[in-house]
Amino acid sequence: MAVVLGPNRYGKAETRVVRVTRDGEVHRLKDCNVSIALSGDMEGAHLRGDNSAVLPTDTQKNTVYAFARKHGIGEIEEFALLLARHFVDSQRAIRHARVEIEEYTWSRIPQGPPHSFVRNGGEVRTCLVHHDENGTSTVVSGVRDLVVLNTTGSEFHGFARDEYTTLAPTTDRILATIVTAAWRHRTPDSPYGACYPRARHALLEAFAGTHSLSLQQTLYEMGKRVITDCPEVCEVRLSLPNVHHFLVDLTPFGMDNDREVYHVADRPYGLIEGHVLDDAAPEASFAWS
Amino acid sequence: MAVVLGPNRYGKAETRVVRVTRDGEVHRLKDCNVSIALSGDMEGAHLRGDNSAVLPTDTQKNTVYAFARKHGIGEIEEFALLLARHFVDSQRAIRHARVEIEEYTWSRIPQGPPHSFVRNGGEVRTCLVHHDENGTSTVVSGVRDLVVLNTTGSEFHGFARDEYTTLAPTTDRILATIVTAAWRHRTPDSPYGACYPRARHALLEAFAGTHSLSLQQTLYEMGKRVITDCPEVCEVRLSLPNVHHFLVDLTPFGMDNDREVYHVADRPYGLIEGHVLDDAAPEASFAWS
Amino acid sequence: MAVVLGPNRYGKAETRVVRVTRDGEVHRLKDCNVSIALSGDMEGAHLRGDNSAVLPTDTQKNTVYAFARKHGIGEIEEFALLLARHFVDSQRAIRHARVEIEEYTWSRIPQGPPHSFVRNGGEVRTCLVHHDENGTSTVVSGVRDLVVLNTTGSEFHGFARDEYTTLAPTTDRILATIVTAAWRHRTPDSPYGACYPRARHALLEAFAGTHSLSLQQTLYEMGKRVITDCPEVCEVRLSLPNVHHFLVDLTPFGMDNDREVYHVADRPYGLIEGHVLDDAAPEASFAWS
Amino acid sequence: MAVVLGPNRYGKAETRVVRVTRDGEVHRLKDCNVSIALSGDMEGAHLRGDNSAVLPTDTQKNTVYAFARKHGIGEIEEFALLLARHFVDSQRAIRHARVEIEEYTWSRIPQGPPHSFVRNGGEVRTCLVHHDENGTSTVVSGVRDLVVLNTTGSEFHGFARDEYTTLAPTTDRILATIVTAAWRHRTPDSPYGACYPRARHALLEAFAGTHSLSLQQTLYEMGKRVITDCPEVCEVRLSLPNVHHFLVDLTPFGMDNDREVYHVADRPYGLIEGHVLDDAAPEASFAWS
Repeated sequence: MAVVLGPNRYGKAETRVVRVTRDGEVHRLKDCNVSIALSGDMEGAHLRGDNSAVLPTDTQKNTVYAFARKHGIGEIEEFALLLARHFVDSQRAIRHARVEIEEYTWSRIPQGPPHSFVRNGGEVRTCLVHHDENGTSTVVSGVRDLVVLNTTGSEFHGFARDEYTTLAPTTDRILATIVTAAWRHRTPDSPYGACYPRARHALLEAFAGTHSLSLQQTLYEMGKRVITDCPEVCEVRLSLPNVHHFLVDLTPFGMDNDREVYHVADRPYGLIEGHVLDDAAPEASFAWS
Repeated sequence: MAVVLGPNRYGKAETRVVRVTRDGEVHRLKDCNVSIALSGDMEGAHLRGDNSAVLPTDTQKNTVYAFARKHGIGEIEEFALLLARHFVDSQRAIRHARVEIEEYTWSRIPQGPPHSFVRNGGEVRTCLVHHDENGTSTVVSGVRDLVVLNTTGSEFHGFARDEYTTLAPTTDRILATIVTAAWRHRTPDSPYGACYPRARHALLEAFAGTHSLSLQQTLYEMGKRVITDCPEVCEVRLSLPNVHHFLVDLTPFGMDNDREVYHVADRPYGLIEGHVLDDAAPEASFAWS
Repeated sequence: MAVVLGPNRYGKAETRVVRVTRDGEVHRLKDCNVSIALSGDMEGAHLRGDNSAVLPTDTQKNTVYAFARKHGIGEIEEFALLLARHFVDSQRAIRHARVEIEEYTWSRIPQGPPHSFVRNGGEVRTCLVHHDENGTSTVVSGVRDLVVLNTTGSEFHGFARDEYTTLAPTTDRILATIVTAAWRHRTPDSPYGACYPRARHALLEAFAGTHSLSLQQTLYEMGKRVITDCPEVCEVRLSLPNVHHFLVDLTPFGMDNDREVYHVADRPYGLIEGHVLDDAAPEASFAWS
Repeated sequence: MAVVLGPNRYGKAETRVVRVTRDGEVHRLKDCNVSIALSGDMEGAHLRGDNSAVLPTDTQKNTVYAFARKHGIGEIEEFALLLARHFVDSQRAIRHARVEIEEYTWSRIPQGPPHSFVRNGGEVRTCLVHHDENGTSTVVSGVRDLVVLNTTGSEFHGFARDEYTTLAPTTDRILATIVTAAWRHRTPDSPYGACYPRARHALLEAFAGTHSLSLQQTLYEMGKRVITDCPEVCEVRLSLPNVHHFLVDLTPFGMDNDREVYHVADRPYGLIEGHVLDDAAPEASFAWS
């Protein structure tokens, strides 16, 4: 038996950068969390403590700030590509870069001066970019913490049963979920800025517009709609917790409860995950890793 | 020395209730987290395990659900008052009730059917209600997690200095905070529904409109504006963390950084807390406890 | 109506400091989170942006580090007193200081060198210290996140009932809670180092040794035991969530469940809070604020 | 273009189960969080809302409780295997089961009765088990939230440099990390109970005993030690955040700081991830997915 080093990566995670652009009195704001992971010729570092191939994570952090100054931060996918390519192209020992960015969005305060902002809560825009020494770039965009709910239009029955099944079938339940979705772009030069609101709208529209016989069906419709509405997207991955809303039994108090009062449970929860893709999609390669 | 029981309270915390109102195809949604704390003749329970005065916390939870069914959930302050009065009025041993409610708000999904909702992230609407056996009710309304930021219009200089002071004065910094604010109503029959957006708007407007020489000054202006704009409010309490945005030093890379690139720090943070009140405000009594 | 400034305070929260003491090859470690809040003549800052009384929160942070270097960090109560007195004594405008410290404890790695540590999870040791311009110091010590559970020896019956009561009485249930406890010292020169393990042991022993008819009774016994075992303590405050363990109904599967399989619920939960004190305790003054 | 369904799975996540075993007055406690994900013939559910292949997640939850009653919970890996095999073997449409369990450990309260427990904080024991229709089972065991720190014996220098590098080399720094480790068993009949403490001890010993030139080197030594000490293990995966402890500059206050006072940063942090394996390890197949 010989013990060997397998795949590995390292980098600076969660560099929080805010970039302000000042156009006279009108300011713009980008608020991001950048995580970098590099890999390459790292045997020496792991086996012998030879750090000659290791660009410090501190340098990676500095690069985020310097690039934010030099290039500004446009669409997060573009900023991630810029960073990923920089590390692979400038460091001989770095064969592959993975850059993940979260963006927190802000709105202007209504009637406030053009330098005052209120943070939009709720969903976070995300991207995951890879670039390797062969010049291959992959881009995945996404959203998380998009919370949606239908008060009707959701059924669940006709399911498999076994000796441990006690669930009653239902033809009208609340369906609620916290959407984590990510969509892979066919090429690394997608119109990212236009794509995000279109994909987000597709997710909302499909969730709202699908009469659901299971959360699986809703998931599929959501993924399909993104691909249909966004020709630049070839694959969608969704993770949808089923946030259970249980109808409370009020009969002990002499009351009916015709879908009016619900208890929202924390745990356990159903968790539905699936991929939806164009069957002619190019290979995913390392896009999702 | 004799060991004695001091003040005490007990109750069911964080009952998560969703109430749906169905007006034909148009549905409405209230999504709340209700915490109840009761106090009264509880010596027996503590000293002898005599529970005859203890209305179970399970019963309190049931009451939330039953009242949601019977009365609906209008403004959270009204629902909290209803609950608080119920416990004090119906249980001889209960002398005092404290009810705290958080409300998570939802919007309709644009172009979706009238039963589809997306949760508004960000701020949470809150209230804290007390009612005691003498019939005194107090009501505090509030907001938390309202995140705001000015990219200019904030200075900090002229401060006290000692041997441990290294901070450089500044005449132009980012000012960012996560607002937790609560406002006390003069009477328990305030127009709660109208007051909330007005108070929220006052907070935003004062934050945006104040040229700030310190976060303390901004805090005071925010509190003052709520009282001025909301005649039904007599006191405001604010807790404002100073979310530090540090200008990154880019000179090692041959770059200037004229208020463009900032690092957002997690900890430590400044924390500014203060009360602002009408000097003719009635006694707070137990309103804030 | 005149709007006025009420009570206020400000300071640096959550300064994370690690202090290493090197005694040859044997190292010792103190790992703390320090939060400071100062108050005094702050009208100018709030009303006019006059910061001449405001010692920057950045300076407070520096002071934590400098004092850790100069004095070391012994018992956290002593370090907090040192800081609190420093601010009040050295700044004319500061009338009152509040210092809160959390301590995370570490153990040596068994058989490792005397500079290797593993963090003890679970409970956090806490203190809250006040000092004012009149020279009054108050000290409260405590613990949080101490999680305890009895698999038997807990009953709950004989409780009050109303029309919303459905809870079945029980003579044998799991009792579990996450202890947050704080104890007030009679004087600011308590033997803090000896007191902490004694108080902690008293809490555990009383929890384990009390045949409980309600969590209220257990709470009282825990508080009483601390006061009894620690003569330097005059008051204890406890906050005990009732972490509900529900016996799962397995009858649909043809199984009994004689206190073997439990579901642990997250929300809602009971919350029992109470003070226990020596009836001759000195006035608490601002000790708990 | 045709939109198709790709890989998918669904199940009940985070079923919190406590199992008590009562041996006369001596009670034993297992406290787990069980997450199940099943996959198989789910096209109908996604594409047509045909749920005939979908065993409800509610049933999966029931099964956890029923199996806890019937079989008890021994080593978590064994309980996970039991569950995984049950679903694949009993449901024709289920082709593959993934079961993840977290275990929270408890100790007896010293000098308490044999039914009183205090929860061990800190690390959580984990496992991830797969079983498919071909009868292949894979088992990964692990630990998370194991926090360790060396106050010396850590250097970092000789690293790559570029125009954005400002980090100073060091020959003596604090090295701290929060270990997430998982180890793959060669076969599904490992001695899980004996393996866990041995692997945990190997991680601690390697961390403590390695004079570290980089966290990468420490990672490799930790992985290697687990494989060396545990012949039943063929691969280890580690994720080690570098919890930065920065020496505070106290020179403005006329003080030196010879590795005594450190600031602990939250974000950003380095993140070092790597696999270490026996080069003759069997194929991982779906073990890590």
